Amino acid sequence: MHAVIPFAIENPKTRLAGVLEPLERERLARAMLADVLEATERAGATPTVVTTRPLEADEAVDVPTVVDDRPLTAAVNGALEQRVPEYPREGVAVVMADLALATPDALETLFSTDGDVVIAPGRGGGTNALVVRHPDFRVDYHGASYLDHRNRSRAVGATLETVDSFRLSTDIDEPADLVEVLLHTDGRARRTLEEVGLELSISEGRVGVERR
Amino acid sequence: MHAVIPFAIENPKTRLAGVLEPLERERLARAMLADVLEATERAGATPTVVTTRPLEADEAVDVPTVVDDRPLTAAVNGALEQRVPEYPREGVAVVMADLALATPDALETLFSTDGDVVIAPGRGGGTNALVVRHPDFRVDYHGASYLDHRNRSRAVGATLETVDSFRLSTDIDEPADLVEVLLHTDGRARRTLEEVGLELSISEGRVGVERR
Repeated sequence: MHAVIPFAIENPKTRLAGVLEPLERERLARAMLADVLEATERAGATPTVVTTRPLEADEAVDVPTVVDDRPLTAAVNGALEQRVPEYPREGVAVVMADLALATPDALETLFSTDGDVVIAPGRGGGTNALVVRHPDFRVDYHGASYLDHRNRSRAVGATLETVDSFRLSTDIDEPADLVEVLLHTDGRARRTLEEVGLELSISEGRVGVERR
Repeated sequence: MHAVIPFAIENPKTRLAGVLEPLERERLARAMLADVLEATERAGATPTVVTTRPLEADEAVDVPTVVDDRPLTAAVNGALEQRVPEYPREGVAVVMADLALATPDALETLFSTDGDVVIAPGRGGGTNALVVRHPDFRVDYHGASYLDHRNRSRAVGATLETVDSFRLSTDIDEPADLVEVLLHTDGRARRTLEEVGLELSISEGRVGVERR
């Protein structure tokens, strides 16, 4: 299975600005990318990172990268257009780079589920990861992409399946999402949060994060 | 598998007060309970509802109910204390009544996973559903119950497993959670939201709910 991992380098994770400085957000974004790449490879897939600009030496990852400075939807569709015809049967996966909770098991379930289009829904109507095995299917990440992708599958005559995974449903966008990283992972993303001094805070029965 | 479904009748779902009137919140809570009961039975388990006071005739559910007006943790521990020794091998499940996205498949995975304690984590460190097969394990739903339950399992020498389910991770507490009901279910809870006039709203790429 070939897996495309889109990665926007500039000013990542702006919704975490309340708890992390710009350099810390960049560091977290790269740590999550590395975690996702490792889980993807351990799930038996071959990842390519599609970045908005060339990675610097200190950002280098140990997998092929392709530079495409178009917005997410266009860049992913470019990759699908090129690669789905090459791998019509096993398909091409697209996995978001901020799925810090992704495990090899969760991704393997996604990769091995039959269907022309297989979606791991994100919270709030997103599409956090998917597999495409139909040459005419294209993504649109704007708005409720899960609904759009359902409609597009129908429109091109592609069967659609979903996989039920808490881990794949959790993309890391907001401070509350960092709670999940601290609770459910032990990869680079979690170590990064710990190194910058974030820890779980529990008060009035609610769980959040705070600086040590 | 025996399944305990705790249900607090008084003033349910207060965090939905911004979008639903008190009577609408009660109606949603009962609809979710009915959906959870149906999914539990279709997953092959036998549910008992543990309510804080007797159900009125118009609230009646088609399964046995037990009245226990203690807080959630004490009521569940009372049920575990009584029932786990009766079913030591298959265990006793505890499923929250607001898991509107629960499907028979998701619950069957939970029920059939081996372990002295098997947890379906909720977002934010909660414990949305679990199976208990160890006589000394007790719950504590306050705070980050997922962490507490992990520690308690260790303390009593019980093995702990988790199941990875977006559907079971989604309890319906806040307005944003209603988006998931409208996107991913077609049960009574969704019909209730549609009947009171709530629908998805998509603006600026964000998905929410609004009154028609």
